[in-house]
Amino acid sequence: MFDKQYDIIVVGGGHAGAEAAAAAANMGSKTLLITMNLQTIGQMSCNPAMGGIAKGQIVREIDALGGYSGIVTDKSAIQFKMLNKSKGPAMWSPRAQNDRMRFAEEWRLALENTPNCDFYQEMVSGLLVEKNRVIGVRTSLGLDVKAKAVVLTNGTFLNGLIHIGEKQFGGGRAGEKAAIGITEQLTDFGFDSGRMKTGTPPRVDGRSLDYSVMIPQPGDEIPEKFSYLESHTLTSQRDCHMTHTSKTVHDLLREGFDRSPMFNGSIQSIGPRYCPSIEDKINRFADKDSHQLFVEPEGWNTVEVYVNGFSTSLPEDIQFKALRSVKGFENVKFFRPGYAIEYDYFPPTQLKHTLETKLVDNLYFAGQINGTTGYEEAASQGLMAGINAHLKINEKQPFVLKRDEAYIGVLIDDLITKGTEEPYRMFTSRAEYRTLLRQDNADLRLTPKGYKIGLAKEERLRRMEEKERKSASFVSFFKETSYTPEEMNPILESVSSSSVKQSDKMFKVFSRPKVTMNHMLQLEAVSAFVSEHNLDREVLEQAEVQVKYSGYIAKEKVNADKLHRLENVKIPDNFDYSKLKSLSFEAREKLEYIKPVTISQASRISGVSPSDISVLLVYLGR
Amino acid sequence: MFDKQYDIIVVGGGHAGAEAAAAAANMGSKTLLITMNLQTIGQMSCNPAMGGIAKGQIVREIDALGGYSGIVTDKSAIQFKMLNKSKGPAMWSPRAQNDRMRFAEEWRLALENTPNCDFYQEMVSGLLVEKNRVIGVRTSLGLDVKAKAVVLTNGTFLNGLIHIGEKQFGGGRAGEKAAIGITEQLTDFGFDSGRMKTGTPPRVDGRSLDYSVMIPQPGDEIPEKFSYLESHTLTSQRDCHMTHTSKTVHDLLREGFDRSPMFNGSIQSIGPRYCPSIEDKINRFADKDSHQLFVEPEGWNTVEVYVNGFSTSLPEDIQFKALRSVKGFENVKFFRPGYAIEYDYFPPTQLKHTLETKLVDNLYFAGQINGTTGYEEAASQGLMAGINAHLKINEKQPFVLKRDEAYIGVLIDDLITKGTEEPYRMFTSRAEYRTLLRQDNADLRLTPKGYKIGLAKEERLRRMEEKERKSASFVSFFKETSYTPEEMNPILESVSSSSVKQSDKMFKVFSRPKVTMNHMLQLEAVSAFVSEHNLDREVLEQAEVQVKYSGYIAKEKVNADKLHRLENVKIPDNFDYSKLKSLSFEAREKLEYIKPVTISQASRISGVSPSDISVLLVYLGR
Ligand SMILES: Cc1cc2nc3c(=O)[nH]c(=O)nc-3n(C[C@H](O)[C@H](O)[C@H](O)COP(=O)(O)OP(=O)(O)OC[C@H]3O[C@@H](n4cnc5c(N)ncnc54)[C@H](O)[C@@H]3O)c2cc1C
Ligand SMILES: Cc1cc2nc3c(=O)[nH]c(=O)nc-3n(C[C@H](O)[C@H](O)[C@H](O)COP(=O)(O)OP(=O)(O)OC[C@H]3O[C@@H](n4cnc5c(N)ncnc54)[C@H](O)[C@@H]3O)c2cc1C
Repeated sequence: MFDKQYDIIVVGGGHAGAEAAAAAANMGSKTLLITMNLQTIGQMSCNPAMGGIAKGQIVREIDALGGYSGIVTDKSAIQFKMLNKSKGPAMWSPRAQNDRMRFAEEWRLALENTPNCDFYQEMVSGLLVEKNRVIGVRTSLGLDVKAKAVVLTNGTFLNGLIHIGEKQFGGGRAGEKAAIGITEQLTDFGFDSGRMKTGTPPRVDGRSLDYSVMIPQPGDEIPEKFSYLESHTLTSQRDCHMTHTSKTVHDLLREGFDRSPMFNGSIQSIGPRYCPSIEDKINRFADKDSHQLFVEPEGWNTVEVYVNGFSTSLPEDIQFKALRSVKGFENVKFFRPGYAIEYDYFPPTQLKHTLETKLVDNLYFAGQINGTTGYEEAASQGLMAGINAHLKINEKQPFVLKRDEAYIGVLIDDLITKGTEEPYRMFTSRAEYRTLLRQDNADLRLTPKGYKIGLAKEERLRRMEEKERKSASFVSFFKETSYTPEEMNPILESVSSSSVKQSDKMFKVFSRPKVTMNHMLQLEAVSAFVSEHNLDREVLEQAEVQVKYSGYIAKEKVNADKLHRLENVKIPDNFDYSKLKSLSFEAREKLEYIKPVTISQASRISGVSPSDISVLLVYLGR
Repeated sequence: MFDKQYDIIVVGGGHAGAEAAAAAANMGSKTLLITMNLQTIGQMSCNPAMGGIAKGQIVREIDALGGYSGIVTDKSAIQFKMLNKSKGPAMWSPRAQNDRMRFAEEWRLALENTPNCDFYQEMVSGLLVEKNRVIGVRTSLGLDVKAKAVVLTNGTFLNGLIHIGEKQFGGGRAGEKAAIGITEQLTDFGFDSGRMKTGTPPRVDGRSLDYSVMIPQPGDEIPEKFSYLESHTLTSQRDCHMTHTSKTVHDLLREGFDRSPMFNGSIQSIGPRYCPSIEDKINRFADKDSHQLFVEPEGWNTVEVYVNGFSTSLPEDIQFKALRSVKGFENVKFFRPGYAIEYDYFPPTQLKHTLETKLVDNLYFAGQINGTTGYEEAASQGLMAGINAHLKINEKQPFVLKRDEAYIGVLIDDLITKGTEEPYRMFTSRAEYRTLLRQDNADLRLTPKGYKIGLAKEERLRRMEEKERKSASFVSFFKETSYTPEEMNPILESVSSSSVKQSDKMFKVFSRPKVTMNHMLQLEAVSAFVSEHNLDREVLEQAEVQVKYSGYIAKEKVNADKLHRLENVKIPDNFDYSKLKSLSFEAREKLEYIKPVTISQASRISGVSPSDISVLLVYLGR
């Protein structure tokens, strides 16, 4: 019934699928997005928020490359906060609260406005594969749709099983069906699959809460935004609130532990370590009498509220009783209870750097199906899979980001090199070169690349180039322009920094820890330069970071260059490790399984030691 | 986990459930709305439109009583049309196209802003019944929630089975789960249940259509609205379009008839006669080579389009091939195929006029579960069930609308008296007194009643009273004021109506068929009266109808009064028909089953003849 062959079929309309479809279509592939319910495209399954530490950087990177997550987030945000502003700029992390319904609606509209992107509502039950190459999908109604490449982004839906207390039922999300057929077929093809679990807190009626006893958590006074393009900035915001659990709450929760699927053995699979359920927190941190809870509105107008920090799969009555003992929740009414969900994933070591599977050509996996957790992680994988599927079928070079180029590069390299036994979430600590991978420079790092592959639009590149040019000239200005002690000393005094005796270049004094751009702007020459060149907030921020952290940045660049040397030592396809007798047994096994493409990647495989690397280097003639 | 007993639990958040919950809560009952998915409250399962012939009148009635459907429709409308404006005012029927997503969102927000209305997301799997009285519900997780009364509004979800071609799968709507447990329990209690079916057309990608070869169907130039309250009027509208099927299309569809669940015996149940599937139309009207199709946008921004008139459960490939032969659809892309759904319903003769079941006290049924079809029919039943559940638990008199008071009265009286073997839909022809039951006077008919029971707000009553007062004084003005032949004759000439010789009261000449309010406004005295008394469009319309149709209206009032006389002859509860030997066997059986409460109702039962009625009247001493 589809009269033509598609270039690319994307299965699933979650964060991964939406980015994959947008990228493929924007690059020019005839793309079909097949998803179980067209009304849940871009649905946020869990918390109504995007970004946060390391995750915010990923959203900025997606935007810099020409993805949509940043724009959609800006359009549907109800609050914006730059986290970690008191720390170094490598740690600054943008985060937005979102209107859940608006977020999904904006995603849908964005995709509808993308030429080349078609839609179809149906469950995909299997793949069409010919000679180890995917050639399309089969739907549950028995319809075959052909394509040159397929991206699977099934999220938590593959054999999804929902748990609340002792009850279990099939589902991909509360109220939605699970997807069956795909795992079974893929394991027949020889794929390994595993089970993971995740959980979500109860949703409650905001009208039943007493906010007066909670601590308001307002957004930033001057809210920023995610997209580097001209996009919506907030003029008003909604507050979140903070409260906390107590010993009484914990005791009430403990009463249900014998009926907890986490503790009575019904859930065997591993959940996200850094989004633990409240019962997990009580269990693991038995000495803590209190945990923070963040009370987050679900949108501009709705009274529905998300209780961040209270994820649980305890029986409903226990959830309810315990939550009623939380300060401000004495009269709480539930909209729905929390629950846990178990689902199938495919260990990502079965993938190449492009997210193509090693076993089946032109088949790509992206998102939660790869064992990750989080919207941002999913979206960025979708983007990369969409890009690479398009490049592959057009016989172009793959698009792979290095670990010093993007968090996205770290994420994918970690996944395919190290695999993951528990839901993988991004942290700044996972990035060796995090001083380079900042939220303020994702455009400088990635927009030229996104433009080169035909994804980022001209306008995006022009904006980035202007920012680059302006901030570079502003940095030069600081290097070239001198201050006088008379104008500088009052400023230094105000921050208790030692005074200067004579005139010198501004760059030097600006590098001092306590001196900020706001201080420098008090100098007449600086403020004159700013208004003469019409420099905006982004340029000021960029220049400030480049001046103040120039030392760190330079050091990391040197380190990164070292990595590049190893990165340049390629290991040939189908390299025969059995020839290298002096490799350890474990190293040989892992190397044969992972098939690293460079020495650098090989060195990151757990179980491959520096001496194994030396053996390899010697053999490869380095 | 619910710490209190609710007054009323409403099961299901469709049109019936939403109105039921709103009414009960607004009247002061502590109400809980339990529905399978809080994100689908107020979902339009099929066409994105409200109103139409007879149905538009129902929406106006719901609004007049204080229900929400009219307001929600106004807020989410993308086009408004007064149908049948060329016919008599009894036939004028308002109709709106709606933004599907916005409609659901507005419903949800309206309910959230209703004090006393709580929400819970879960599937109800059974009722708690004690001594033939319902005392609550049990959810699929095993949670018991107590209440004094329960309203069931399960729509098409009870054991819902979806058909496309030879494929079948469980579901309450495409992509949503079916509800199980309730039918089984109710039949155990002794309820009769049956199966019905309905269908929906494919949704397609508007970007793939050629509108230039279709006929635009714009909205009214001066769009009206549904609600009698100050509510949103459209300032811009979206066009619909018309196209039609052809012999080729029909031939292509016929190719799939052997795989049609309608024709190969897989669907046994009866569908809505007046919303037939396209295969049904071809089959039943074999001599017609063409049927109209209306191409309706699904919202303000979305490209999704609804193909009204092409409802089908033929195999997907057939749907697609045939639709591609429709003018303007040559390159159509599907978003999803059409399908049919079979579901359980409960013959409504098992209900009282209040929609309470005869078998279980305080249990009410409303909507599609009663064998009706259509949003408006469902919503009005929900409203009446919500009202009556509230009145019953507060030991107040039931609220029943008579057949000459409202389409809602006709609907419910038809359902409980005659039952229905096929999906029941409202038509103007079902109302004996349709000249009384107009869209322009639903407020005059019903707002005082709605106010009296505590549902319609003060403001609504005041507005209605002002309209009543102003239009009455305007009608009196026409009765009392005379025209001169000089000013009148040019107008009469312009409409080719015979001229007048001498001055006379305006009322008389205004009664002539071709003379309209717009003509009368050309008289100086009339336009002076209008501006002096600040009369708005609604008052002008009301006065015009009252003048021009005074004869018809008076006649119908007389007929209706006759009905009232029979309506006043009550039949005692548990009347023993076996005593009346001269009743026909069929009449006795039907009367015992239906238990009519008045002679008038008895006379409408099919199989009860006028002579049976005489027997009853004699016995009752009349
Ligand atoms: C209950 C729950 C709790 C969570 N808690 C957290 C948390 O605490 N922290 C956190 O970071 N993340 C959490 N997540 C994870 C987060 O929601 C996911 O990481 C993110 O949504 C993954 O995006 P995705 O695109 O991979 O998949 P999803 O967002 O799950 O989207 C999958 C899409 O694929 C469609 N689909 C699936 N199978 C098929 C098929 N066979 N045919 C057609 N369509 C199909 C689905 O309809 C859906 O549209 C939670 C998720 C759930 C469900
Ligand atoms: C495929 C299809 C085609 C249709 N075609 C037409 C048409 O051509 N013309 C026409 O006039 N009408 C048509 N209709 C009918 C129209 O949609 C209904 O008349 C109207 O929606 C009925 O409203 P309702 O409130 O009774 O039920 P619904 O709108 O069906 O709502 C039922 C609600 O109850 C909830 N629910 C059900 N069971 C449970 C449970 N056990 N626990 C908790 N919640 C539950 C559901 O989630 C849903 O929210 C069609 C419907 C469908 C599905």
